[in-house]
Amino acid sequence: MAQNGSVDEFLGAAVEAAKKAGEVIRKGFYLTKNVEHKGDVDLVTETDKACEDLIFNYLKQKFPSHKFIGEETTAANGVTELTDEPTWIVDPLDGTTNFVHGFPFVCVSIGLTIGKAPTVGVVYNPIMDELFTGVEGKGAFLNGKPIKVSSQTELVKSLLSTEAGTKRDKPTLDALSNRISSLLAKVRSIRMTGSCALNLCGVACGRVDLFYETGFGGPWDVAGGAIIVKEAGGVIFDPSGKDFDITAQRVAASNPLLKKVFIDALKESE
Amino acid sequence: MAQNGSVDEFLGAAVEAAKKAGEVIRKGFYLTKNVEHKGDVDLVTETDKACEDLIFNYLKQKFPSHKFIGEETTAANGVTELTDEPTWIVDPLDGTTNFVHGFPFVCVSIGLTIGKAPTVGVVYNPIMDELFTGVEGKGAFLNGKPIKVSSQTELVKSLLSTEAGTKRDKPTLDALSNRISSLLAKVRSIRMTGSCALNLCGVACGRVDLFYETGFGGPWDVAGGAIIVKEAGGVIFDPSGKDFDITAQRVAASNPLLKKVFIDALKESE
Repeated sequence: MAQNGSVDEFLGAAVEAAKKAGEVIRKGFYLTKNVEHKGDVDLVTETDKACEDLIFNYLKQKFPSHKFIGEETTAANGVTELTDEPTWIVDPLDGTTNFVHGFPFVCVSIGLTIGKAPTVGVVYNPIMDELFTGVEGKGAFLNGKPIKVSSQTELVKSLLSTEAGTKRDKPTLDALSNRISSLLAKVRSIRMTGSCALNLCGVACGRVDLFYETGFGGPWDVAGGAIIVKEAGGVIFDPSGKDFDITAQRVAASNPLLKKVFIDALKESE
Repeated sequence: MAQNGSVDEFLGAAVEAAKKAGEVIRKGFYLTKNVEHKGDVDLVTETDKACEDLIFNYLKQKFPSHKFIGEETTAANGVTELTDEPTWIVDPLDGTTNFVHGFPFVCVSIGLTIGKAPTVGVVYNPIMDELFTGVEGKGAFLNGKPIKVSSQTELVKSLLSTEAGTKRDKPTLDALSNRISSLLAKVRSIRMTGSCALNLCGVACGRVDLFYETGFGGPWDVAGGAIIVKEAGGVIFDPSGKDFDITAQRVAASNPLLKKVFIDALKESE
């Protein structure tokens, strides 16, 4: 593995790239936007493309031997296989629907995998100016202050975040609403804010206790948040209870105390 | 009607009271909280009580002839009838579940009705430092800048906000999930953030296009936001399509262009 640098260097570069992209997002957030369709209800904006170029160019210059996987590049060129090489996995603008509507849950998500394992994560919400960071073995932070997952042990007192996704066929919607109904009978309440990466950070800083989502766009939605959750003392796993697979478009996260009851509740909600 | 003052004085006093209460909320937001149960999953905190006392004392001193209706007072003393007199209707802390979890959608909501009509509204989110204001005939503002509802005309491109409420019996949950499934087939996506007053302000500033909620706590959840929606060019109505009744614990809001299709979609979702 041609790592060519320390994790601290990688983190510093990712933060710098996220802040530069965040500035572009912040400017666009308050303007009328040119919107293209991506699927039925998903959107991709000029800002999305500009931010991916900006982040990739910045990181490629610093780390020319590293690999890159991005939402926009994948949309244009097809899926890039994840290898053991240091690989930057980037969602330049997570929460594009929110961006188009001016709903303040948007972020840049940058993750670095080494040996396929999430190692460095940066998630930056430029509207709320919240910078979440995590590095393997070195803790997780929000604007430089350490964060940790909630200490909640009871499902009935837990706040759950999830998303409605973008698929609108009847079987998907029926499964979604049945699952929500089943879970609502067991948790305190539910939040849907429209950003997978920020939902992971919400678990990491204890704003929510539980998060699951299936059928999201790709590894770029979770690569940054995964290590932030882990380093905040949380657990990240497949909603079935199996190991988390960064390429599977399925994710669940919680504190370790809730993991078993959450998986049971998810199974019963299927 | 013993009005005893101008609407500008009423607005100034409400903003002052909301900011004072907001300071208390902001301090409490980052601390461990003492929580009591209110129903199955609703919560009321010491902060809630302290803020209602603070707001009522401040406004009663300025406007001793006015009437007052508050969530906490009502919980303690029963329902106060709404009359034609100038009446302050206050939710000292909307989004108490969010407050307890540290989820940043919390606010103070202060509304003044005169002749039972919402006339002055102030909704303040002290965590995001967003102050929404509206006065009948004088427009709506976010941190002093004019706001207006979205210009969206198509349901399929609209972002809908709603809430899961606090009732967890099976008939309620089934009705809720069926309605969500039906609406999701027609709108772009759904957001649930846990504050009725901020949802109304979300419609007012165009962050979301549509909002409905039924079964919330009382008039204090909507008294501040109602006039802000109207003054931002929006419409507020009963989800059935009938006129908005501030005491009915049922509300819907949108821009005027979406009202008819939204009501049709709500009817079809029942």
